[in-house]
Amino acid sequence: MLPHSHEFFMQYALREAHNAYEKDEVPVGAVIVINNKIIARAHNQVELLKDPTAHAEILAITSACNAIGAKYLPGATLYVTVEPCLMCCGAAYWSKIGGIVYGTGDDKNGYKHITQDQWPFHPKTTLTNGVLEHECAQLMKDFFRAKRR
Amino acid sequence: MLPHSHEFFMQYALREAHNAYEKDEVPVGAVIVINNKIIARAHNQVELLKDPTAHAEILAITSACNAIGAKYLPGATLYVTVEPCLMCCGAAYWSKIGGIVYGTGDDKNGYKHITQDQWPFHPKTTLTNGVLEHECAQLMKDFFRAKRR
Repeated sequence: MLPHSHEFFMQYALREAHNAYEKDEVPVGAVIVINNKIIARAHNQVELLKDPTAHAEILAITSACNAIGAKYLPGATLYVTVEPCLMCCGAAYWSKIGGIVYGTGDDKNGYKHITQDQWPFHPKTTLTNGVLEHECAQLMKDFFRAKRR
Repeated sequence: MLPHSHEFFMQYALREAHNAYEKDEVPVGAVIVINNKIIARAHNQVELLKDPTAHAEILAITSACNAIGAKYLPGATLYVTVEPCLMCCGAAYWSKIGGIVYGTGDDKNGYKHITQDQWPFHPKTTLTNGVLEHECAQLMKDFFRAKRR
């Protein structure tokens, strides 16, 4: 089977983000893929769990490690709708995840505004962004616009 | 009652770090204190849980939020034996924790070598280091020296 596209897997991450949105959580979703197959999926559950660490990426990494019974994920790719924050960036570092693909940037809470020119991930981790960027960004905009009303 | 000293609470974090050491985990321990009372304690469980996110600070923050039923910890202080990594630094940011007190620095994995001149915590978070520094550092040295043998 030919490998699925980044867009294919990001659609599943977006579906998770929509699940978060419907539960009044900041709409971020993530899936983790190994060998062309989703092994973990999660969405932000900070409000539900009253846990500031319950970001989609943290939950997905924990779930993926559980699924394969290992603490490292070098053969895996994390798809996440929004640029990871510093916490999730650190979690990705520790997991030695093979790749990170994200949808839209996050100027306020994304890792880049803190790490700047430093590479905070494992040296072998690859990074791709802008996949389904418009859809991922629009969901965030809709959420925060509704909050401000 | 007079507030206990930083050293008093760091002893409890050190006890947690010793628990980790005995289980062959990187020996880092943490406690979270509100109103002069420990409300959460944890040690690194990455190996046990096969979960790269299971650092002492993450487990302690999750546990503290559970204990008080809230996602923010502005009135709390985190005591941790070793300088937090980027992930735990991000978790502390999201929790808006009132204070962080750590024992020894970590030149390799501590947050500072990435964040450099940036302040990665909540603006109101206070930071103290060097509390029981020697004891916290010695435990780490002993652990990694034994590993290299």
